[in-house]
Amino acid sequence: MKILVINAGSSSIKYQLLNMDTETLMAAGIVERIGDIQGVLSHKKYTDGDEQKTVIERRIDDHKQGMHLLIEMITSSETGVISSTGEIDAIGHRVVQGGESFSRASLIDAPIKAAIEKNNPLAPLHNPANLTGIEVAQQLFGDTPNVAVFDTEFHQTMEPKAYLYALPYEFYQELKIRRYGFHGTSHKYVAKNVAAEMGKNPEEVNVITVHLGNGGSITAVSKGRCVDTSMGMTPLAGIMMGSRCGDIDPAIIGYIVQEKSLSYQEVDAILNKESGLKGICGMNDMRDIHESAAQGNQRAKLAVDMFTYRVKKYIGAYFAALGRVDAVAFTAGIGENDDIVRAAVCEDMSGLGMQIDPEANHGRISTRKKISAESSSVQIWVIPTNEELQIAQDTMAIVKDM
Amino acid sequence: MKILVINAGSSSIKYQLLNMDTETLMAAGIVERIGDIQGVLSHKKYTDGDEQKTVIERRIDDHKQGMHLLIEMITSSETGVISSTGEIDAIGHRVVQGGESFSRASLIDAPIKAAIEKNNPLAPLHNPANLTGIEVAQQLFGDTPNVAVFDTEFHQTMEPKAYLYALPYEFYQELKIRRYGFHGTSHKYVAKNVAAEMGKNPEEVNVITVHLGNGGSITAVSKGRCVDTSMGMTPLAGIMMGSRCGDIDPAIIGYIVQEKSLSYQEVDAILNKESGLKGICGMNDMRDIHESAAQGNQRAKLAVDMFTYRVKKYIGAYFAALGRVDAVAFTAGIGENDDIVRAAVCEDMSGLGMQIDPEANHGRISTRKKISAESSSVQIWVIPTNEELQIAQDTMAIVKDM
Repeated sequence: MKILVINAGSSSIKYQLLNMDTETLMAAGIVERIGDIQGVLSHKKYTDGDEQKTVIERRIDDHKQGMHLLIEMITSSETGVISSTGEIDAIGHRVVQGGESFSRASLIDAPIKAAIEKNNPLAPLHNPANLTGIEVAQQLFGDTPNVAVFDTEFHQTMEPKAYLYALPYEFYQELKIRRYGFHGTSHKYVAKNVAAEMGKNPEEVNVITVHLGNGGSITAVSKGRCVDTSMGMTPLAGIMMGSRCGDIDPAIIGYIVQEKSLSYQEVDAILNKESGLKGICGMNDMRDIHESAAQGNQRAKLAVDMFTYRVKKYIGAYFAALGRVDAVAFTAGIGENDDIVRAAVCEDMSGLGMQIDPEANHGRISTRKKISAESSSVQIWVIPTNEELQIAQDTMAIVKDM
Repeated sequence: MKILVINAGSSSIKYQLLNMDTETLMAAGIVERIGDIQGVLSHKKYTDGDEQKTVIERRIDDHKQGMHLLIEMITSSETGVISSTGEIDAIGHRVVQGGESFSRASLIDAPIKAAIEKNNPLAPLHNPANLTGIEVAQQLFGDTPNVAVFDTEFHQTMEPKAYLYALPYEFYQELKIRRYGFHGTSHKYVAKNVAAEMGKNPEEVNVITVHLGNGGSITAVSKGRCVDTSMGMTPLAGIMMGSRCGDIDPAIIGYIVQEKSLSYQEVDAILNKESGLKGICGMNDMRDIHESAAQGNQRAKLAVDMFTYRVKKYIGAYFAALGRVDAVAFTAGIGENDDIVRAAVCEDMSGLGMQIDPEANHGRISTRKKISAESSSVQIWVIPTNEELQIAQDTMAIVKDM
């Protein structure tokens, strides 16, 4: 079975074509700057461990044209890996916000599209773009089934005590203000696979999954079910991120509005784009920050300290939420590649039963690897995430039942 | 040495007169509804375990008239405990926001008053009222030294990684936006006294102090020094409170402003006065909430679950911050009197080494008491707080050096 995974943004389409019989990647790429004067498509074709890259620069008017181009790339004799789109058995779409409507992946039809659209106010930048991707795929792929896989669905198992905010209850009833959480596909993938590496079923273990990329979130998973997660109604909340502030005193917003004479929209943009690591030290790539810190930049060192301290506190909070923890698993860009961050997060955590093995932790880690010391009662792992594979697996599970 | 402790609010003055030779309370009371059509003074005189209460209702124009009245009460032959104000050696004033200017109690002079005033924007409801109390005391008590004791001073030992928000750094430099924390006098008192009860110096132990009143905050104290605390730039942040929301996704504020067409002042009032326990179940007194929950009110039960779950997570977070924890100490209205809340907070925390003794935990606790099981590696205590005594002790330490 061959599955195409689509992640449509406001001006981009990311894609992967996977052969699910072997769970191998056939092709992957990204169409970017849709609607700009000059668009660009970067495409990779994978054959027997070989990788062939193609880049095309040209104007790409809209998502439909972008999708046409990617179909051309995966089917042409030069760059393609299939002879026609008819070989694709299903298309899995990443959708950011499923709200309370979706606790699992869903085969897309008109009512499902309407339900996704209903959640637009909660993800005004993402859901409309995701829907455009779905529309265009439906137009260009004929009868091929389309499946929506939601960033929020894994978190729908949270109890009210974890997902409700201590606000007037009618804000939840009328405006659906609650914690949704994001990165669900990644947390689900990592939670499942760390259990597998431990030789356990997901139902047998409690794990904390630590997704640290440019965005980041931490999830408490009990027996395979999410019980809490650090992002909130939006992806702004939780830990410190590349350019997002994460948790702050909510009174600060009105204070900034007043003292700086800014609009809410302007403050919102600052909290999302000018804060986090970037706000503290001017950089949001952790590699640059480490390099600068090593050269004595105190602000860069502070940014790393703030970042790792916040992760540490969330891990502690989720220890309390879970009662017992079997494993902590790091994933995503920083989680997989940054041994300095992993070491700092796990430092002085032996009170919680966490002890890292400095040797095992060393360097970038691109395969599943245990990095805790033998004496550590909580296992610490690096589990490289693979959201596209998880989306493809969820898509396959749906279309197999058809 | 006799010390008068003053806590001046916008329309009230709380006071206690303490004999510091024996650390006993001589008189206490509150002047309320200053400026209203009808004001009220409630005064208690303590003599040899006896308590004599007086209530006076009359118009009280301003703080000066209120202070006159309380002087009358403590010096009159009927209700008084001293013959003249000359017997008072010093006056200790509670001041809410000391900002970064104050990391200890300070003898009040003109520059100190100016420094307190400089912090007004950070506590617009509290600091001006506290200053009024100081002004009036200086006018009416002649040469008696006045000392300011700050709610924030205990927290000034936090490191930047704990007190800075991941916002543009210039917001800290220009606007002094950072975590200050409050209830410092209570956390200091409880941290010191739980150590004493354990037979240790404060410098020998790491403790988490859990102040749960109508407002509430949790503090991580390492070797007598605060390393982190749950309230933020303002007392709105942290755990869920009687009517305050505590931590929420900061993006929610703009969302409410937009969806409900409210001003940020209106949203601010909702977050401070209509949220927390009250927002969820319409009640903000934990006794009423328990009663209602016992009668089957699901929203009341939810409010308790949300409240205790958040406290639990903060305790976990501070375990991670401290590395090793010797004791957790509950204090203030709910912390001292509510065994249901204490039990729920400590439930399933044996992974962190916390095990409550249900017998010892039972009922209201009005004296220092260990409530953990013998098997608990972390001791759990109830330590009734006494902010006025702490203010008097800090005041005495200053005037003794004069």
